[in-house]
Amino acid sequence: MSRWQPDAGSRLERAALELFIEQGFAETTVPQITERAGLTTRTFFRHFPDKREVLFAFDTQLPGIVERLMAEAAPGLSAMGVIRSALETVATVNLVGQREHLELHRSIVQSDGGLRERELRKHSILAEATRLGFLARGCDELTATLGAHVATTAFNVSIDRWLDAGGERTLEAVLHDVLDGLEGLLR
Amino acid sequence: MSRWQPDAGSRLERAALELFIEQGFAETTVPQITERAGLTTRTFFRHFPDKREVLFAFDTQLPGIVERLMAEAAPGLSAMGVIRSALETVATVNLVGQREHLELHRSIVQSDGGLRERELRKHSILAEATRLGFLARGCDELTATLGAHVATTAFNVSIDRWLDAGGERTLEAVLHDVLDGLEGLLR
Repeated sequence: MSRWQPDAGSRLERAALELFIEQGFAETTVPQITERAGLTTRTFFRHFPDKREVLFAFDTQLPGIVERLMAEAAPGLSAMGVIRSALETVATVNLVGQREHLELHRSIVQSDGGLRERELRKHSILAEATRLGFLARGCDELTATLGAHVATTAFNVSIDRWLDAGGERTLEAVLHDVLDGLEGLLR
Repeated sequence: MSRWQPDAGSRLERAALELFIEQGFAETTVPQITERAGLTTRTFFRHFPDKREVLFAFDTQLPGIVERLMAEAAPGLSAMGVIRSALETVATVNLVGQREHLELHRSIVQSDGGLRERELRKHSILAEATRLGFLARGCDELTATLGAHVATTAFNVSIDRWLDAGGERTLEAVLHDVLDGLEGLLR
């Protein structure tokens, strides 16, 4: 990429989010996005296959992040211990300062049936990466599968409740409630 | 409906499943389905909006079934007790004799990306119905949400493992493994 466009992907993403919020996802076109970002449609299509995927560009990084988080959890932890450790890192490191962005993202996704279906696919990408992480730690197939679904549930429910709380609680505090709730359920 | 078509919906569904298996989902047309079933396309569109929805026609009944199952579980059960009770009924009553049908259904859904996304939506319909069932039993919002995801996970993972076992195990036996595995995640 030219040094005049050091951050074209982010500029396009920001422009797209603004337009989706201002005038609706269905009503926004790729040329409108590139005009707002001051870039060409050719640059757009070097970064994203279509306007929907602007909202899910980060998905490709998810499996690698999950793999690292799970490998970094202390050895010998139970499956639930691994979930707790990995999600605490997400809450206190990865997602710090991301609340407003995630809130914007969620409101756009919820506005459109097709985006909601695509979001469900993201959850299954997350669950599959987590399953592989558990297998890499030596868990049996059943524990890996169930642990993956429990982790994905804890993550998604925590994010939702955090965003619903509108900045009044930290993600870490909400996450602890959710994990305690899960443990209370299974006890 | 005329008395000459006492079971048009099922006949159309059976014909559609046969054709999807024989020649593929994408390659099958509505006229082919109606010809196989000996019915008209007009009858088809009285039952289903399109060929995809033939595979998900049962979805509309899911919320009512979940509501009944959860209301029938003994009073005073823990959330996990309700999940156990409701899924045991599913395994020993509702799904008896359905293994081959579910196997066929799964192989068609897995053959097509659009059907896989639609299947994920079915899972979220199931989770939402379960959440409402927990709320109706007086659970708090967090327990209801987490219980719904745990129940849906237990159900989906059990069905998958049951089908993978190719008729060698009962759904009830598989379900017990899965529920024990969920409880064991904490241990």
